[in-house]
Amino acid sequence: MGKAMSMNLLRHGFKVTVWNRTLSKFVFLLCTALLSQYLEWNLEICVCDELVKHGASIGETPAAVVQKCKYTIAMLSDPAAALSVVFDKDGVLEQICNGKGYIDMSTVDADSSSKICEAITSRGGRFLEAPVSGSKKPAEDGQLVILAAGDKSLFDEILPAFDVLGKKSFFLGEVGNGAKMKLVVNMTMGSMMNAFSEGLTLAGRSGLNPQTLLDVLDLGAIANPMFKMKGPTMLQNNYSPAFPLKHQQKDMRLALALGDENAISMPVAAAANEAFKKARSMGLGDLDFSAVFETLKADGHSS
Amino acid sequence: MGKAMSMNLLRHGFKVTVWNRTLSKFVFLLCTALLSQYLEWNLEICVCDELVKHGASIGETPAAVVQKCKYTIAMLSDPAAALSVVFDKDGVLEQICNGKGYIDMSTVDADSSSKICEAITSRGGRFLEAPVSGSKKPAEDGQLVILAAGDKSLFDEILPAFDVLGKKSFFLGEVGNGAKMKLVVNMTMGSMMNAFSEGLTLAGRSGLNPQTLLDVLDLGAIANPMFKMKGPTMLQNNYSPAFPLKHQQKDMRLALALGDENAISMPVAAAANEAFKKARSMGLGDLDFSAVFETLKADGHSS
Amino acid sequence: MGKAMSMNLLRHGFKVTVWNRTLSKFVFLLCTALLSQYLEWNLEICVCDELVKHGASIGETPAAVVQKCKYTIAMLSDPAAALSVVFDKDGVLEQICNGKGYIDMSTVDADSSSKICEAITSRGGRFLEAPVSGSKKPAEDGQLVILAAGDKSLFDEILPAFDVLGKKSFFLGEVGNGAKMKLVVNMTMGSMMNAFSEGLTLAGRSGLNPQTLLDVLDLGAIANPMFKMKGPTMLQNNYSPAFPLKHQQKDMRLALALGDENAISMPVAAAANEAFKKARSMGLGDLDFSAVFETLKADGHSS
Amino acid sequence: MGKAMSMNLLRHGFKVTVWNRTLSKFVFLLCTALLSQYLEWNLEICVCDELVKHGASIGETPAAVVQKCKYTIAMLSDPAAALSVVFDKDGVLEQICNGKGYIDMSTVDADSSSKICEAITSRGGRFLEAPVSGSKKPAEDGQLVILAAGDKSLFDEILPAFDVLGKKSFFLGEVGNGAKMKLVVNMTMGSMMNAFSEGLTLAGRSGLNPQTLLDVLDLGAIANPMFKMKGPTMLQNNYSPAFPLKHQQKDMRLALALGDENAISMPVAAAANEAFKKARSMGLGDLDFSAVFETLKADGHSS
Repeated sequence: MGKAMSMNLLRHGFKVTVWNRTLSKFVFLLCTALLSQYLEWNLEICVCDELVKHGASIGETPAAVVQKCKYTIAMLSDPAAALSVVFDKDGVLEQICNGKGYIDMSTVDADSSSKICEAITSRGGRFLEAPVSGSKKPAEDGQLVILAAGDKSLFDEILPAFDVLGKKSFFLGEVGNGAKMKLVVNMTMGSMMNAFSEGLTLAGRSGLNPQTLLDVLDLGAIANPMFKMKGPTMLQNNYSPAFPLKHQQKDMRLALALGDENAISMPVAAAANEAFKKARSMGLGDLDFSAVFETLKADGHSS
Repeated sequence: MGKAMSMNLLRHGFKVTVWNRTLSKFVFLLCTALLSQYLEWNLEICVCDELVKHGASIGETPAAVVQKCKYTIAMLSDPAAALSVVFDKDGVLEQICNGKGYIDMSTVDADSSSKICEAITSRGGRFLEAPVSGSKKPAEDGQLVILAAGDKSLFDEILPAFDVLGKKSFFLGEVGNGAKMKLVVNMTMGSMMNAFSEGLTLAGRSGLNPQTLLDVLDLGAIANPMFKMKGPTMLQNNYSPAFPLKHQQKDMRLALALGDENAISMPVAAAANEAFKKARSMGLGDLDFSAVFETLKADGHSS
Repeated sequence: MGKAMSMNLLRHGFKVTVWNRTLSKFVFLLCTALLSQYLEWNLEICVCDELVKHGASIGETPAAVVQKCKYTIAMLSDPAAALSVVFDKDGVLEQICNGKGYIDMSTVDADSSSKICEAITSRGGRFLEAPVSGSKKPAEDGQLVILAAGDKSLFDEILPAFDVLGKKSFFLGEVGNGAKMKLVVNMTMGSMMNAFSEGLTLAGRSGLNPQTLLDVLDLGAIANPMFKMKGPTMLQNNYSPAFPLKHQQKDMRLALALGDENAISMPVAAAANEAFKKARSMGLGDLDFSAVFETLKADGHSS
Repeated sequence: MGKAMSMNLLRHGFKVTVWNRTLSKFVFLLCTALLSQYLEWNLEICVCDELVKHGASIGETPAAVVQKCKYTIAMLSDPAAALSVVFDKDGVLEQICNGKGYIDMSTVDADSSSKICEAITSRGGRFLEAPVSGSKKPAEDGQLVILAAGDKSLFDEILPAFDVLGKKSFFLGEVGNGAKMKLVVNMTMGSMMNAFSEGLTLAGRSGLNPQTLLDVLDLGAIANPMFKMKGPTMLQNNYSPAFPLKHQQKDMRLALALGDENAISMPVAAAANEAFKKARSMGLGDLDFSAVFETLKADGHSS
C-alpha cells in the first residue's frame, strides 16, 4: 500500500523520500514539506526503482528521513513494525524534534499508538495516528478514508497530502481514537461478512440460486460494495487475500476486548468472531476474510 | 402498501378495481387486464375515495373482483389474511377459474403459499407468489423488488404491471421459492442491523462520536442504504415502524427453521434472532426493527 | 425402553399385556389394573418371547389391549407414532371409554399431546401425559424420572406402577406441562454438553490432559453424572447412541420455539443449537448427542 | 480464604507464621517446614488475633516470612497483588534462595505466573503455582481442589499441607498449566450457569414451577452441586457474592483468549461471556455470578 500511496503523492507534485524496512514486508513512507503549502515527500520501497524513476529520493534509515523531512509518514504492516521503526537503532526517535511531525498510518492498537505518541511528543515532535479504511485498490486510486487522531495542528498542515491519498479525512480527537474507529468499522464489517455468508449458504442449500440472491441483494436496502465485490468470488471459492482472515479475526478480538473494557455485550460480533476462529482452525487464516464462508459448508451427509 | 401500489398502476393507465378487507389492517388489491397488453386493475382501500378519485372502481368482495378481472393481485398483512381472502366465504376460490390468474404479493410462508397454489390450480386458475423486497417508500416510488415464483406464463403476462410496481422482477422457479428468497434477504438484513447496532454502541461507549461512525461507514466498502437511512433515527432513539421488529424476528425465526430443515448451522443469525427476542421481551415488538439497538444499552452502572 | 419397563412391572407382580407396533422401532406398552391396588399390565415387544416367558400376555392391536385393560401405557418413539396408535384403525380410540385411563409416556410435543388428550377425554377416557427423563439404563433399573400432567385422579391411581418404573414422579398440572418440562431439561442438558465439549477441547489443545480435566471436574461444584459417563467415551471418539444427536437438536429447536412464543431470549441455548446443527451437517445426527464434541475439532492447520 | 486455610493448618499441628498485605483486601499466607515431615507455617491476617490465639506467629513483611520459613504459601486476590508481594520492596525476592520453596495459590494468569517463576528460580528458589477450585466453604472444610504445576519435588514435599487444605491435589506439569486448568473449569462452569439460568427462565415464563424444575434436575443426569446450591437463591433473587460475576466474566474472557491463541472456536462460551458482559452493563458485576440470571428477565411488556 505504501507504494501506491507514494505514487499518488509523486503524481500530485509532492517531493517524496522513501525508505523501506525489509525486503517487502514493511513499507515505510517518509515525507517533508519544503515550501509554504507544498510538501516534500520521501518514500522508499525495497528495490523501488519505479518510485525513484518517478522522482522519489531515498533515505538510508528512518532517522535519516526524519532528519531530512518536516513530515514523516509511516505505513507499516503491524504494531511490532510500527514500534520498531520508532524505537530501534537508526529509528525515528533519534531525529524527531521540535518542528517535525510524525504521522503513523499503520493499523496499530491504541496502546502501541499511545506509546509512540508519548515518545515523539516528549522529544518535541508532533504526532498523528492516521489508520485508513480501504485496502490496495482504494490506495491506488487515492480513495482511502483516513481516520486521524492526535495533534490537530499537524492534521491541518498535512491535509493537502491526505487529500491526495484519500477521499475523506476525519479528525477524531485524542490519540487512540483512530485505532478505535478502525476497530469499530472492521468489527461491523466482520459481522456483516458472516451475515452475508449465512445468507448465501441458506440460499444455496434451500434450492435457490445464490447468484440470484446477489442480484436481489444488490437492488435492496442492504446493497453495498462488499457484497458486490466479494459475492461472485465467494461463489467461486476464490479467496485470494485482499484482507487476510487472521487480521480480520484479530480486529474482531480487539473490538470485543474494547467492548469488554466498557461492559458492552455484543453477541452478534462474538458469534462472528467464533466463526472466524473456526475458519482459522480449518487452516484458512491466510486467505481472504470472506473464506469464513467455508465454515458453513456441510462436511458430511446431513441427517 | 397496497394503496401506493394501486396509485402507481392508475398513474400508468391501468384500470384498477379495489377491495379492502377490514378497516385498515388489510389491503387487498385486485386487478385485471382488459386488452392485449393493458391491464384493468381493481383496488380498494378502506374509505379509499382517493383511489376512486384517481379512477379505481370498487369490488364488493374478493370473489366479485376475481369475477370481473383477469388478473388479481393480493397484498395482505400476514399469512392468516392471505389464506382467509382465498378460502373464506365470498373468497377468491369462488370465482377463480380457467383463464384467470392470481398473484399473491403478500409475505407468506412457503406452506401457506403452497396451500393457496394448490387450491387455485385445482380450479383451473394460474398462481404466482410474488413477495416484495422494500417497504412503504419504495412502494410509492415503484421501486420494489419483486420475487416471483410459480406459473411462468402468468409471470410473463403480468410483467407490465410488475414493471410499474417495481424496479426489477425475478422469476425464481417453483412456488415457495419467492417466500424463501425473501426470508434469506430478511435474515441477512436482520443480522446486519445487529452488526450495525453493535458498532454504534461500541463507538458511543468507547468515546467516539457515533455520528462520525455513520460518516465513516458511508464512505467505505460496507456503505448501504439501510445504514444511511436508519443510522440517524437510531441515534435519536426514533423507532417509528417502517418494518416492525416482531415481523423481522418472525422472519429470522422462519429463516432459521428453513436452515434447520437443511442442517445449516447459522450462528450469527441465531445470535441476532436472540437479540430481537430480547427486544420483544423489552416490549419493543411493535417498533421499527432498528429498535434492537436498545438491547445494547447499559441499564445499570457497569462494573 | 418399553421392554425394560415391562420387565420391571412383571418383576414386581403386575400383570402385563403387550403389543408392539413394528419390527422394533416402536414399543407399545399396555397395562391394566385387575385388583384394588394391583395392576394387570400388558406389553408386547416384537418377537418378545422373553416378556411372555416372564408372564406377559399379548394384545393383537392397541384397541384389543385397551379393551382388556383398565390402564394403558404407551411408550413410542416419536409424535407421529404416538398419534398413529391412537387415531389409526384398530387404535386406542376404538375402545377407550369411561372408566379407562390412557397414559402416554412417549416424548411428544405439547400440540400432539393436546390432540390425543382431547380425543381420549371426548370419549369419556382419562388421559395423562408422562414423558420420562432418563434413557435405557435408568429404564432397566426402574430409575426414571416421570413428568406427568393431565388427569390428577389417574395420576394417583397409576402411581404404584410409576413407583416401579421410576424413582420419582412429578404431577405438573395441565396437559402439555410434561412435554414442556422435558424440553426445559433437555435444553439445559444440550447447552451443558456443549459447555463440556468446549472445555475438553480447550484443555486438549492448550496442552492439558483432558482426562485430568475429567478428574478435576468430578471433584468440583459442577460434577454430574453426564460428565462422568460421557467424558471417557467422548475422549475415545465413541458416540454409540444413547440419545441420538438429531433428537437432542430437535428438543433444542422446540425449546427455543417455546421461548420464542414467550419472548424469551436464550443466547446460550441458541448457540448450542447451532452447534448441534453443525454436527448434523457433518453427518453425525444418528450418533450420540455427545458427538457435538466433533464440531470443535480442528480440521486444518490453524493459522 | 487465607484465614480459613491457616486455621486448617493450625488445627492439624502445622506451625504457621502469617502476614497480611492490606487491611483486608489481601491475605498472604506463609509457611515453613521445621522438621522432617512436620511443617512450620506462618500466616498473618490483618488484626488477626484469632489466628495468633490459635498458635500462629507473625511475619513483619513477606521478606521476613520467607527468611524464617522453608515453604511460603501465597493466597492473594489478583495478579497485581501476586506480583507486588514478590517484586516490591520487602518482598519475597529479597529472601528467597536455594533450599526455599514458594507456592502461589492465588488465581493468576499464566503470564504473571511465569514471571514470578522465573524470578524465584533465578535466585535458586523452587516455585509451584497452585490455584484452587472451590471458594470460601470448601476452604473452611479443607475440601479445596488444588491444581499445582511447576517444581515436582516441591509439590511432593508440600503435599502434607495440601492434604490438609484440600481433598485432592493434581500435579499438572509445567508452570502455567495450573492457571490454564482453572480457566477451563471456570469457563465450563460459566457456560453451565447460563444454561441453568435459561432453563429456569424458560420454565417460569412457560407456566412451569421453577422450583419443580430444580427437583427434576436434581434427580437426573445433569444433577450437580452448583444447581443444587445456587438454584434456590437465584429463585429468591439473592446474589450475595460467593464468586463475583466480574471475576467469572474475567475468567471467561481469559479462557476465550486462550482458545483464540490456539484457533479454537467456542461459540457457547462466547455467548455465555456476552451474557456476563450484559450483566456487568446492568451493574451486577459485584454480585454473585449467578446474577447472570437477571439478564434473562423481561423488562417490558413482551410483544
